[in-house]
Amino acid sequence: MVHPSLSDPTTDSPPPLKRARHSDMDQHKPNGSQQHPQPNALPALSLSILGVEPLDEFIKEIADFVHHMIKTRRTDHPDEVGSFEVEAKIGVLKERGTGSRLQMPVLVETIMSPEFHDVRFESNMSSHQHKHFNGLLNNLTATSNQPSHPSSPLHHSHHFLKDSFYTSDRGKIRVTRDEKTDAVECIQKIRLGDLNIYSPKRSADWRVSVSVEVPCPRPIGTATLTRRKDRLSYSHEEFSIDLTQVTSTTSAAAAPQIFHELEVEIARPDMLLSTAARRGDPNVPELERSAFDELIRAFVNNARILVRNSIDGWQ
Amino acid sequence: MVHPSLSDPTTDSPPPLKRARHSDMDQHKPNGSQQHPQPNALPALSLSILGVEPLDEFIKEIADFVHHMIKTRRTDHPDEVGSFEVEAKIGVLKERGTGSRLQMPVLVETIMSPEFHDVRFESNMSSHQHKHFNGLLNNLTATSNQPSHPSSPLHHSHHFLKDSFYTSDRGKIRVTRDEKTDAVECIQKIRLGDLNIYSPKRSADWRVSVSVEVPCPRPIGTATLTRRKDRLSYSHEEFSIDLTQVTSTTSAAAAPQIFHELEVEIARPDMLLSTAARRGDPNVPELERSAFDELIRAFVNNARILVRNSIDGWQ
Repeated sequence: MVHPSLSDPTTDSPPPLKRARHSDMDQHKPNGSQQHPQPNALPALSLSILGVEPLDEFIKEIADFVHHMIKTRRTDHPDEVGSFEVEAKIGVLKERGTGSRLQMPVLVETIMSPEFHDVRFESNMSSHQHKHFNGLLNNLTATSNQPSHPSSPLHHSHHFLKDSFYTSDRGKIRVTRDEKTDAVECIQKIRLGDLNIYSPKRSADWRVSVSVEVPCPRPIGTATLTRRKDRLSYSHEEFSIDLTQVTSTTSAAAAPQIFHELEVEIARPDMLLSTAARRGDPNVPELERSAFDELIRAFVNNARILVRNSIDGWQ
Repeated sequence: MVHPSLSDPTTDSPPPLKRARHSDMDQHKPNGSQQHPQPNALPALSLSILGVEPLDEFIKEIADFVHHMIKTRRTDHPDEVGSFEVEAKIGVLKERGTGSRLQMPVLVETIMSPEFHDVRFESNMSSHQHKHFNGLLNNLTATSNQPSHPSSPLHHSHHFLKDSFYTSDRGKIRVTRDEKTDAVECIQKIRLGDLNIYSPKRSADWRVSVSVEVPCPRPIGTATLTRRKDRLSYSHEEFSIDLTQVTSTTSAAAAPQIFHELEVEIARPDMLLSTAARRGDPNVPELERSAFDELIRAFVNNARILVRNSIDGWQ
């Protein structure tokens, strides 16, 4: 076994240049012992020994996951070409065995391995929680329209939608009718992958999902399930925050079930796709190269803000 | 069960003011559907719906932990008044049962609950890893002295220390002699608490420790253990990064053992204490109020940079 002695930097490297003092560096006062700093003086701090903040591992992991889902999606089957949907649902992670909320021996928000199958994610919140978010988002929409607000304003729209689900050869088809406009959309939603986010300090966890929505012909036959959605959609820049009350009916005889959900979604699939295509491309300007990661950063920030504003009251 | 209908923001709140456009907000173009944005246009993004980045939960957890350790330390016993030491050691978390590196079903760096006792932390690295860090830190010291470096320069100093440990009524006493200057320091180090950081994407984990070092009279009797430390200390602003080769001897008959360690430490206990005292104090300026959290942020950033630059080769 070799036990190398420590080498001093000056014996390994050429003598350091005398350091020029630039005005933007004058805030950094090295606190060498020669200078006898005052103990109560505020420390003059750089972000790190490298002068920069290290990369945020959490946000990069989400961005890598979404990017991987988009880039590895096979597109050679013409029937399966569709729009990518990236959404974060707010809910709770529950242990499959006990049905209790997941408990892990960690203190802060973290991303669960997809190989960890002992949990299921429940996005159904109590009506009380739902009302709480409705109030918060309404207030934010109002204050975001004040000139002093540090971001662009939120806009809201109220939708009444009816989903009917059909089983076909190619899988489950969803037909959505907008009950105000009578517009109809038929799609097959193909789930590509999920990441569960465990958030032990908060009342809620969250899940990032990537799907493809493939337009398809209107099915014939009888719907196996219908649901009515009363949805308030709050749009902010590239995101849509949807607060939805769902009334679900399996048959005329069965009593309808009511669910409450909250999700944040990347609003424009084409923009998602174009920024993903240019991610890290050395041939485009830095702003374009990093646009995908900045989009995911804001997406994660928005999901976190919702999670941190959750109260007790998950079902 | 109550099923409240969703309420629109405008029915709950006074009508929003017409939004004034400020020059610093012009970068935020709301992408409402009325505006037909180009799909390839770069998104104009705020950091979130609130316009700000949400608080970093990880860094706040470390700051809360260190602050709690400092504030709850009893100081009424005159024999136990000392200096606080906050350090992050780089190493690996090992499962007690198997001795293998800890494996948890999470994808990114997270803080382990102190109640999770199934791990031990090993800070001993291979001589190869040690040499790797020596080279990196020497290079950084050299480049940080170039005018183009975005942070203040690192300084290094080389120390040869001899620790002798004694058992006394009050616990274990460490006597440290600087072999260059012959200066002697006698202290009792009282460990207040640790937080283990699991870092599944990297070759290393880390541990934050808070201790009190209490000066004490020089003990009499025979040392139970001696160790020689060959230490290169790299100082940067409020931090000291210590790369140490330790040669440990229990008796003249036993063969000496050699260990290699890397740690980053907050350099000035009095500055640590004074910023902790003013943390969140509404009666001091914002810069002073947040100085403790900014100190911990840079501390965490530095530990992360070391961890991310580790290579395989832990023992």
